[in-house]
Amino acid sequence: MSLDALFDPRSVAVVGASANPAKWGYWLASGALAGRSRRTVYLVNQRGGVLDGVPFLPDLDCLPTVPEQVVVAVPPQQVRPVVVEGLMAGARCFTVITSGGAGPDEERLAALVTAHGGRLLGPNCMGVVDTTTQLRLSWGEFPAGAVGLVSQSGNLALEIGRLLARAGQGFSRFVSLGNQRDIDAADALDALIAHDATRVVAAYVEDFRDGRRLARTLATAHTAGKPVLLLSLGRSEASGRAAASHTGALVSSRAVVEAVCRDTGALLLESAGELADTAVLLTAAGRRIGRARTRAVRDTGAGGPSSPAPADGAPSQARGRRALRVAVVGDSGGQGALAADALAARGLHVPVLGEATRAAVARHLPGRSGCANPVDLAGAGEADLRNYARITRALLDGGDTDATVLTGYFGDYATANPDQAAQECEVARELGEAARQSGRLLVVHTMASDTPALTVLREHGVPVYERIEQAATALAQAARQDRTTQQAPPPRLPAPAPDPLPDGDYETVRTLLRSRGLAFPAAQFVTTADEAATAARRTGYPLALKAMGLAHKTEAGGVALGIADETALRTAFARMIGSTGATRYAIEEMVVHEHSVELIAGVRRDPAFGPVAMVGLGGLTAELLADTALALAPLTPRRARDLLLSLRHTPLLTGWRGAPAVDLDAAADALCALALAAAEHPELTELEVNPLLVHPGGAVALDAHGVLT
Amino acid sequence: MSLDALFDPRSVAVVGASANPAKWGYWLASGALAGRSRRTVYLVNQRGGVLDGVPFLPDLDCLPTVPEQVVVAVPPQQVRPVVVEGLMAGARCFTVITSGGAGPDEERLAALVTAHGGRLLGPNCMGVVDTTTQLRLSWGEFPAGAVGLVSQSGNLALEIGRLLARAGQGFSRFVSLGNQRDIDAADALDALIAHDATRVVAAYVEDFRDGRRLARTLATAHTAGKPVLLLSLGRSEASGRAAASHTGALVSSRAVVEAVCRDTGALLLESAGELADTAVLLTAAGRRIGRARTRAVRDTGAGGPSSPAPADGAPSQARGRRALRVAVVGDSGGQGALAADALAARGLHVPVLGEATRAAVARHLPGRSGCANPVDLAGAGEADLRNYARITRALLDGGDTDATVLTGYFGDYATANPDQAAQECEVARELGEAARQSGRLLVVHTMASDTPALTVLREHGVPVYERIEQAATALAQAARQDRTTQQAPPPRLPAPAPDPLPDGDYETVRTLLRSRGLAFPAAQFVTTADEAATAARRTGYPLALKAMGLAHKTEAGGVALGIADETALRTAFARMIGSTGATRYAIEEMVVHEHSVELIAGVRRDPAFGPVAMVGLGGLTAELLADTALALAPLTPRRARDLLLSLRHTPLLTGWRGAPAVDLDAAADALCALALAAAEHPELTELEVNPLLVHPGGAVALDAHGVLT
Repeated sequence: MSLDALFDPRSVAVVGASANPAKWGYWLASGALAGRSRRTVYLVNQRGGVLDGVPFLPDLDCLPTVPEQVVVAVPPQQVRPVVVEGLMAGARCFTVITSGGAGPDEERLAALVTAHGGRLLGPNCMGVVDTTTQLRLSWGEFPAGAVGLVSQSGNLALEIGRLLARAGQGFSRFVSLGNQRDIDAADALDALIAHDATRVVAAYVEDFRDGRRLARTLATAHTAGKPVLLLSLGRSEASGRAAASHTGALVSSRAVVEAVCRDTGALLLESAGELADTAVLLTAAGRRIGRARTRAVRDTGAGGPSSPAPADGAPSQARGRRALRVAVVGDSGGQGALAADALAARGLHVPVLGEATRAAVARHLPGRSGCANPVDLAGAGEADLRNYARITRALLDGGDTDATVLTGYFGDYATANPDQAAQECEVARELGEAARQSGRLLVVHTMASDTPALTVLREHGVPVYERIEQAATALAQAARQDRTTQQAPPPRLPAPAPDPLPDGDYETVRTLLRSRGLAFPAAQFVTTADEAATAARRTGYPLALKAMGLAHKTEAGGVALGIADETALRTAFARMIGSTGATRYAIEEMVVHEHSVELIAGVRRDPAFGPVAMVGLGGLTAELLADTALALAPLTPRRARDLLLSLRHTPLLTGWRGAPAVDLDAAADALCALALAAAEHPELTELEVNPLLVHPGGAVALDAHGVLT
Repeated sequence: MSLDALFDPRSVAVVGASANPAKWGYWLASGALAGRSRRTVYLVNQRGGVLDGVPFLPDLDCLPTVPEQVVVAVPPQQVRPVVVEGLMAGARCFTVITSGGAGPDEERLAALVTAHGGRLLGPNCMGVVDTTTQLRLSWGEFPAGAVGLVSQSGNLALEIGRLLARAGQGFSRFVSLGNQRDIDAADALDALIAHDATRVVAAYVEDFRDGRRLARTLATAHTAGKPVLLLSLGRSEASGRAAASHTGALVSSRAVVEAVCRDTGALLLESAGELADTAVLLTAAGRRIGRARTRAVRDTGAGGPSSPAPADGAPSQARGRRALRVAVVGDSGGQGALAADALAARGLHVPVLGEATRAAVARHLPGRSGCANPVDLAGAGEADLRNYARITRALLDGGDTDATVLTGYFGDYATANPDQAAQECEVARELGEAARQSGRLLVVHTMASDTPALTVLREHGVPVYERIEQAATALAQAARQDRTTQQAPPPRLPAPAPDPLPDGDYETVRTLLRSRGLAFPAAQFVTTADEAATAARRTGYPLALKAMGLAHKTEAGGVALGIADETALRTAFARMIGSTGATRYAIEEMVVHEHSVELIAGVRRDPAFGPVAMVGLGGLTAELLADTALALAPLTPRRARDLLLSLRHTPLLTGWRGAPAVDLDAAADALCALALAAAEHPELTELEVNPLLVHPGGAVALDAHGVLT
């Protein structure tokens, strides 16, 4: 069912309306009345009253027409009776501000509404706002703009609104999720993605519910060219505690949320400030970053996975795509240098400008100042304000870079000298025009605040920041957003296998994984020392002996490697039976390959996102290296390969210091087999292969285990 | 000579005074006149004129008294004549705004002044300000406050001033360094450190000049309890280009500046914003962070080098000291959680609160809200504003943490409801009092801006931030500042050895390092295959053969390891003589040790800081691991040990997974020997031991080379 009745109802009834400005019922009622020219507004309160000339009606029964949306702000015990009354009156969209009581009560309430073909927002939410339809059913200020926000925190929404307003931006729509008993984050995001006036979608989500569905929504947004900026929690134990206490939900692993965002093109940010800064850049720039980049990639032939990483500070995240190239122009050498550092520290590239651009810039500069990038105005701006526009235009048009950052003083000349006000605004206009005409991005950092020139810049689509690190972070985030254009949609879960696993033992898991095509060393399963010795003669020495049926066999002394002969085997067997009491053992070929690398591969089940595949560097120093990568399971071979290539230590796999490369395709296939097996067996909460030995000739699993629910 | 005449002259003469507000001469003259109640002010301009009733005198000759300071803002060719005239008139302190011409001209000018016992600031500087003595000899706004600033960039100083002013802080003193021909960064910093009204010292330096002296100044500041906040450049190639173009100086390696700051307790920051935020916290908090930490360490017995790192997000930088513990209280669950994440991401610890504190907090909270940390007010604030103060006081007094962060809405109640203004200010006062009485630190993040309650908070020493990441970064920086209390002073350079090295060959360097106590494998030096075979019989097989006299012998095929017998030796010798043409060879014992780790150790010469010692993880994957640590050479054994223990992969040295620890003392001694040898031989620009094999029984250098100037 569409959410039109939520964002643009032809009629709305506020139940619990109040004339007391300290009450929620007042804000909802006065907000609803602000949309009276567009829709019928009913105010309902059983005790009567009047607001702004509109008398309160006693209940929903007595409304002259059906209210398309009913907003409920009554004491908790009255929520259900009001919703029932609304359904009887024909309403099919409910926004419930009040907490609806305990969880099961709320679930029953939502089920009642949906059973009647209706939808419910909340309970326990802050309402809904659409500034394009004069809908304001919430508390607080919601400046109008191009950012759609979905939030599980009301205060955070207010904070984001403040920050956007200070930068001249605001909201197209705001949806407060509350307890998500019916309309959830994915529903609300879908509605924002489809909304033309929403150019950037922002969300704060603590509880991802059906994570797979949310991931598909994020991927849809990316395909539709709508950037999604996401805030979530769980980076620290402390915030995990907070979420558990706040929503009662299990918190998804932060690493999983990061992987989902990476693979769907959503930007996972740190704070309201970072979100606002990035939103301001993306709304101001439109799709200019993408366009500039696409053109640059075409011009240079760069951009493929094999293009080298830039030398100047681009981190590994840039792997596979050229970093965004930025020109810096400052009216101070120091500020220009710090800007270059701030940009490079975030993976952006501040390249030496080409001869032609340098010459075009130098024409407007005093003799000795630097124009290689950063460009130092060195007084050229003070000498003639128009030099700001001339030089910036030369940088934008030069085509050596995708974006230009102007840093320092511009915007504040009129403060010290009011005579310069008009000219400064004119130069600001020219700067905006230069950016628009070039099709490239211009960002301004200035020590000024709230001057007329800054307003002109913003009106012309030039984002303005108080701090260089804000400008650099927003640019870096925008560059990331553009970087992930060619992602596949999130994988769907396969049907569960008809035969659940009886246990997670090596023998069971090995059989499962071999049936999916994963290679293991030749093995025989035995129960006595004599059987072991017989099996060993078939296998040949050296060999490995493993005890079965143990949760942690290595720690329990249940693994002996490199057994050289029958005497050693019998000794090891006797010792193992003593220490583990195991009744079944594997006699296994010892596998050794030149130029091999040990990986760890596994799958774990996230409460929201389901099975997640992990691969990492293994071996003795695995914990120290802490080099792992995640993606939703199951995997495609291409995704698996990308995952391997995203490890920090990837060079060890691709031919380090003259060694032959390992067989990446075989390693990727092994990951795919593992991820699919785990996804088909939802009874497994964990499935791990450790080590997965990859080598120039293939990949082989040397050990494996599973954990059942 | 003291700089009293720079900061508080009894008389000042501005040469080049002007009545035109678009000219520097106007700003200097009107600024000087603002201090007329404290000192005699002469305005000088050969063309006459008058400003604010003060007539311009034609030259320095005709002043009735000697000007203690002469400020020079005249065309470049007149700078020297004016300074000469000033010296003749008895002046001994010169602040030269104008560029003094080319470098050698400026050097001669400075030499002239110092030869007369005087001091010179600049040339090419923005002047000097002391808000405690009404001295304003500069352009722009310099709000008064407790931050002393030394800067090589005028615009950056203005930007820092703006940011401080927006946070209710400002400058005690400002010194613009310009070209540092006499008074340099260390001189200016010394003067700020000794200045009582300067509580925090800030500096932007591009060119460190005598880096050793600057390092000693930084260490002095730390000992004196004056935090130093430093901005510099050179984190990226682009900013290095900018500096070279701006000052013409060689840029110190950023890693060296970072090491110097770490070892002297100075804070190296990223941007003007980060500097302002940290300065605001440190001026507001006074020494409260250090006090709170000291007490907490005493209470818990923690803080020694062996105390475990906290689990909650504290990175390796916290090693050796417990991370600062922070309580978070928010009026929104979402904001509290994001605050906890932002703090933990910066190495701060957000611990579960103890039972007693939780109970004290819970008394003021509605039933179900979280009080483990973060604390969720969940409406308690709206219900009664005084709950903000009650709960914050309980957190501050509870003693479970060193600092408390209040995040969210507080400060803005009066905006929506003016009736609450008085009470909100009263609660703000109570918050300030609670922090003061507890001796702990309170930091506020709020979506409000410029409300009366925020002013009250600032007046009571509570820093207020617009963004949670600002609060978190400032707290993390302040915590770092406190973390480095027990550092030794920077090392002094030893006298150069009387016998400079003839070359950097292995044989030469090996002899030098062995004489300093570094162990090498037994070696014999030979010229022919027969001599090699004879030497090999004494050494025994397997052995190593190395060609001498090559700059990069490994790359040139000049090293053969593990030679098993005489046949192999003769083959290798023939091949090596063919490929390298070397005339001299080493026959060397092959050294193998169980549980050994390969390190790289070296010394390089920084243009400002001189010899710098480096140690890092070696071996095949050294480049991938990129795990190195630096310190000024020479080293003490303790500093060398700390350096080894600061590596990310330190666990490999201290007994990883049950292996015995390597001999850290032997490794540290080897580093000391290497660093001292390089420091005593200034003709070496580089000296490297690679690998330095460290093992449970000692440390042995397997190869070494030097590079001469």
